[in-house]
Amino acid sequence: MDSTTNAPVTVVGLGLMGRALAGAFLKAGHPTTVWNRTTSKSDQLVAEGARRAPTVGDALRASSLTIICVTDYQAMHELLGASDVELDGTMVINLTSGDSAQARAAARWAEQRGARYLDGAIMAIPSAIGTAEAVILHSGPQPDFDAYKSTLDALGTVTYLGADHGLASLYDVAGLAMMWSVLNAWLQGTAMLRTAGVDAATYAPFARQIAAGVAEWLPGYAEQIDSGSFPAEVSALETDVRAMAHLIEESEAVGVNAELPKLIKAMADRSIAAGHGGEQYPVLIEEFSKPRDS
Amino acid sequence: MDSTTNAPVTVVGLGLMGRALAGAFLKAGHPTTVWNRTTSKSDQLVAEGARRAPTVGDALRASSLTIICVTDYQAMHELLGASDVELDGTMVINLTSGDSAQARAAARWAEQRGARYLDGAIMAIPSAIGTAEAVILHSGPQPDFDAYKSTLDALGTVTYLGADHGLASLYDVAGLAMMWSVLNAWLQGTAMLRTAGVDAATYAPFARQIAAGVAEWLPGYAEQIDSGSFPAEVSALETDVRAMAHLIEESEAVGVNAELPKLIKAMADRSIAAGHGGEQYPVLIEEFSKPRDS
Repeated sequence: MDSTTNAPVTVVGLGLMGRALAGAFLKAGHPTTVWNRTTSKSDQLVAEGARRAPTVGDALRASSLTIICVTDYQAMHELLGASDVELDGTMVINLTSGDSAQARAAARWAEQRGARYLDGAIMAIPSAIGTAEAVILHSGPQPDFDAYKSTLDALGTVTYLGADHGLASLYDVAGLAMMWSVLNAWLQGTAMLRTAGVDAATYAPFARQIAAGVAEWLPGYAEQIDSGSFPAEVSALETDVRAMAHLIEESEAVGVNAELPKLIKAMADRSIAAGHGGEQYPVLIEEFSKPRDS
Repeated sequence: MDSTTNAPVTVVGLGLMGRALAGAFLKAGHPTTVWNRTTSKSDQLVAEGARRAPTVGDALRASSLTIICVTDYQAMHELLGASDVELDGTMVINLTSGDSAQARAAARWAEQRGARYLDGAIMAIPSAIGTAEAVILHSGPQPDFDAYKSTLDALGTVTYLGADHGLASLYDVAGLAMMWSVLNAWLQGTAMLRTAGVDAATYAPFARQIAAGVAEWLPGYAEQIDSGSFPAEVSALETDVRAMAHLIEESEAVGVNAELPKLIKAMADRSIAAGHGGEQYPVLIEEFSKPRDS
């Protein structure tokens, strides 16, 4: 192994995800130092070759790169703010779940103490860590990401989003919104089709094809948003809402939940009320961009 | 051309969609008879070689297959119920927009008058008719679909769903629910990212990748629904809702609409309240399968 694949790494926080991260570094041949408040969580990793640090400060001193993955940002601040921790000159990548404001504040806090800081978000379950399926998002200074990318590659598909430390968190929740929306639309359709005796396995390939097909439209629709111009090339909103009304009526007629259909139509109705009935669907960005009651 | 591609076809109803259908038949070499209440709507088609029937009854007598595509089922019933119309022995494919109950009732009505009847739904805009992109769903007796499939192929990608005449309408609205859900989730994410200065074109490929990736899970998740067993192989609902809360908080923090995030969490919260917190996402089928207040 060359010096790059041998780069030592420290992992702080050994919940299910932290243990998966440390295990992936060990498997890739990185000297790995671990720390967790409950030391027994590191037993298996130590058996696999990890070094257990007695304190968080020792853990950070052991490697130039520290990955921290704990319950929340408050826990991160308490651990890295401890008196024996020297952040100056360290590189910290924070994979703790939080929001974009917490990420930006943590970056300022760490940088004021002389650390370099990247914020990250893990779009994967622990068992996927170490495989290409595990997408891990990073944001912060690009030189810091570039310097450690070959080490981070041990964790999965690592992606750089931009200099704003809040981006990893924003992309993460945006991606989750897409995930749950595809699942919910599929459940809505499955519920409707089951009333006609169609089982879920029969309907699923149809739903998959629609979702994948519509996904292809997004880059083109994005151009309308960025240009702020929404000509009805495919369909006008005022035509779409008639089909939305059909969806609500059909949901109610077959006795399934109609809340999702009603939300779909309510957003479009509001956009039409705001004068956009003759424009195309992406004009709804204006409704999505403001709180309900503004 | 052989006799199959030469099969005569009648198209009743020449709105934007009806004209596209008749035009596609003409282009494919089918002798095409058309009728519309406002006769001027057929002028261009007649110039392209269509035959204009003086009455609906004449139109149906001109071909063994009649496609009808009018404003709604009531208009369909009025036209095909006219005194000079002989349905006995005809084949009618109704591509008028409606719901599954209307489709089933229309099938009974037509069959009682001696007609064979398929119900259909067009998942395409008029300009796509005649291309593979135009998906046209059919339901009703399979022998009738099989007998006319080679003629219908002129219209686009024609699909047979099953004997229940209501299926085309149900699949249609289920597919629309998926379409709008993918678009809305993308708009939600786009709205959030724009608050951080990320333009829609930058975010769109990420959203596309998530949507297409999640679409691949559906057949596997469908097995859980059909078996009625929802082990938390990937994640448990009670873990998912913590991330849903993040999505809501982040949406509110950056000042965008939070209604879609709130609906996502509300459905999951209800399923957890019903005792499913330790199970996996597809268990939400139980919430989607019943009206809100039942």
